[in-house]
Amino acid sequence: MSVFLVGAGPGDPGLITVRGLELVRRCDTLVHDRLVAPELVAEAPPHAVVIGRERIGQEEIDRLIVNHGLAGRTVVRLKGGDPFVFGRGGEEALALAAAGVPFEVVPGVSSIAAVPGAAGIPVTHRGLASQVTIVAGHDPSAIDFPTLARTRGTLVFFMGLERLPEIAAGLIAHGKPAGTPAAAISSGSTAHQREAVAPLGELPHAAAGLEAPALVVVGEVVRVRAMLAEAARRAA
Amino acid sequence: MSVFLVGAGPGDPGLITVRGLELVRRCDTLVHDRLVAPELVAEAPPHAVVIGRERIGQEEIDRLIVNHGLAGRTVVRLKGGDPFVFGRGGEEALALAAAGVPFEVVPGVSSIAAVPGAAGIPVTHRGLASQVTIVAGHDPSAIDFPTLARTRGTLVFFMGLERLPEIAAGLIAHGKPAGTPAAAISSGSTAHQREAVAPLGELPHAAAGLEAPALVVVGEVVRVRAMLAEAARRAA
Repeated sequence: MSVFLVGAGPGDPGLITVRGLELVRRCDTLVHDRLVAPELVAEAPPHAVVIGRERIGQEEIDRLIVNHGLAGRTVVRLKGGDPFVFGRGGEEALALAAAGVPFEVVPGVSSIAAVPGAAGIPVTHRGLASQVTIVAGHDPSAIDFPTLARTRGTLVFFMGLERLPEIAAGLIAHGKPAGTPAAAISSGSTAHQREAVAPLGELPHAAAGLEAPALVVVGEVVRVRAMLAEAARRAA
Repeated sequence: MSVFLVGAGPGDPGLITVRGLELVRRCDTLVHDRLVAPELVAEAPPHAVVIGRERIGQEEIDRLIVNHGLAGRTVVRLKGGDPFVFGRGGEEALALAAAGVPFEVVPGVSSIAAVPGAAGIPVTHRGLASQVTIVAGHDPSAIDFPTLARTRGTLVFFMGLERLPEIAAGLIAHGKPAGTPAAAISSGSTAHQREAVAPLGELPHAAAGLEAPALVVVGEVVRVRAMLAEAARRAA
């Protein structure tokens, strides 16, 4: 094996996998996303070449990991969340396969459930939701609102904060009740986490002060957050 | 903090988080699911009370973690995958909150993306899918096939192997093409992993020899598995 596509988890450096951290600690080349925790980047050995990808396009990333892999180096490509959930891991895997470079995918804790969970919201909950749909929110014109509005269970939008007004309006226009519980969670699982919780129709206003990266959750499961707070208050 | 609801990941013991393993190593009580890797259970300290939950119902689990928590013990409730993805973590959290027991949820690598990934299938892929729907498959009568059949992107069924004939028939009857690429993956990420890959209409037959736990993936992303194999073959 020479190239490892590793998920770093949702933000908290303690949420990388044991295997992922072992690989970071013995790599020769580390290519990491901007949102990966600096504590994890600091775990690379002193001799390692460390490359942040702020100014590098996807094609150059592909070329970089292929070339360092062909040179026999142990390469860790460290990505936020999971490599195969909006992580372009499939594209990098195809580039490596086409170049004959052996590789392995090491999954990570995706934000899908970890970020709502860090705000007290389980994406599934008995009696409330047994289905979850994850949607890329950065381009609302590409979203199938008529079907999504009638889809059962929990909706989770990645990269949807900037376009939240259009997302909420699109869902409501196609029949999703404006009163559906909803939340936006910014920098989930980190010390900078902030949340806005409001009915879907009011969420764009309530979340106006939040910053990306953020995740938007729509569905009855959002009520569990208040149920937990209420249970704790009564017990106190 | 006294009770930790910890995700153990999809099966491979190296896929627990760094924080999750730290907690297992210093707990006083470990309550673990049947499917959690024995290597992780073995990490509990010698003094710890270790309780497998084969013969224990959910109510007794709730009572157990509440009582050990109230007694001031450090309790780890170790669950397969992620506590908040079909893990009943929300119910356990509510029981703890109602009893005034401090708790923390430590997310895990869910099977959602890790199990398809272990079979070479990214659940999202540029040009193929930017949406993923996760469905509980154990009770097909509770599945909304008319909406699911028209839902874009990737469909992932948990606990769907035994009811695969009804799931495939339900999707196809409501318009999902029988030729849609599909796969079933059994014991994903472990040494016992097995896969069946076939068009949706033929998958029930192709997957007949597989055993639970298994996950079913339906969608164009399944083609990436063959694309990776073909790229590697050409490069060889």
